[in-house]
Amino acid sequence: MPSPSATQDRYPYRNEPIWSRSEKAIARKAFDAALAQELHQVIQETKRMANEIKQSSDLWDLELHLTQRRKEIDRKYDFRGSRLTDVLGRLLYEGRVDQEQLHGLRDDKLKSIRSHAKFLAEEADAA
Amino acid sequence: MPSPSATQDRYPYRNEPIWSRSEKAIARKAFDAALAQELHQVIQETKRMANEIKQSSDLWDLELHLTQRRKEIDRKYDFRGSRLTDVLGRLLYEGRVDQEQLHGLRDDKLKSIRSHAKFLAEEADAA
Repeated sequence: MPSPSATQDRYPYRNEPIWSRSEKAIARKAFDAALAQELHQVIQETKRMANEIKQSSDLWDLELHLTQRRKEIDRKYDFRGSRLTDVLGRLLYEGRVDQEQLHGLRDDKLKSIRSHAKFLAEEADAA
Repeated sequence: MPSPSATQDRYPYRNEPIWSRSEKAIARKAFDAALAQELHQVIQETKRMANEIKQSSDLWDLELHLTQRRKEIDRKYDFRGSRLTDVLGRLLYEGRVDQEQLHGLRDDKLKSIRSHAKFLAEEADAA
């Protein structure tokens, strides 16, 4: 017979962690700060690239760059509970979120987040 | 029996004018100057828009603007002989080409070009 805590952890999707309200608030804060920082970077990149435009090919390079960055950001910042440990793991790996900001998450989440960050670091090293 | 000049004007596509080598050179010069001027405008617009970016929505507005301008320019600058009188007519209507630059084209071309410019002006007035 399952213990109460095991019952509480039961979820329709396999391996999908449950995020409590306070954990979601912590994740949301870190997530939003990382997104705001990344958007700020794209704005700075764009101003710099635009300033350096000399010919039409530079113009279409900027367009392509913006399209790629938009798609990359859309893909990366996915707040669904089923994706959130991987998303935070990537942000941790990229240095957009730090351990401090994740304080208050349960150990299972922290473990998954760090594990994904480590996986990405190893993948990058191997490439 | 057709006269020699009528024979010379025969062409596989109905109503498609024949452009002589010298006419093509005149058209090419006017076309290239208009395109260069329009690209220069887009570069200036882009630098101005980029300078004024304050938030991410301004960023994606710039991306959309660049995509639209690129498609518009791709569509507009079509140098095929079958399209050229309409293309030059539009550039004349938009003030990107002037009558002076078209000097040396045969009267049938000039008539078609002016007629298309007039049509666009009337269409714009009616809108």
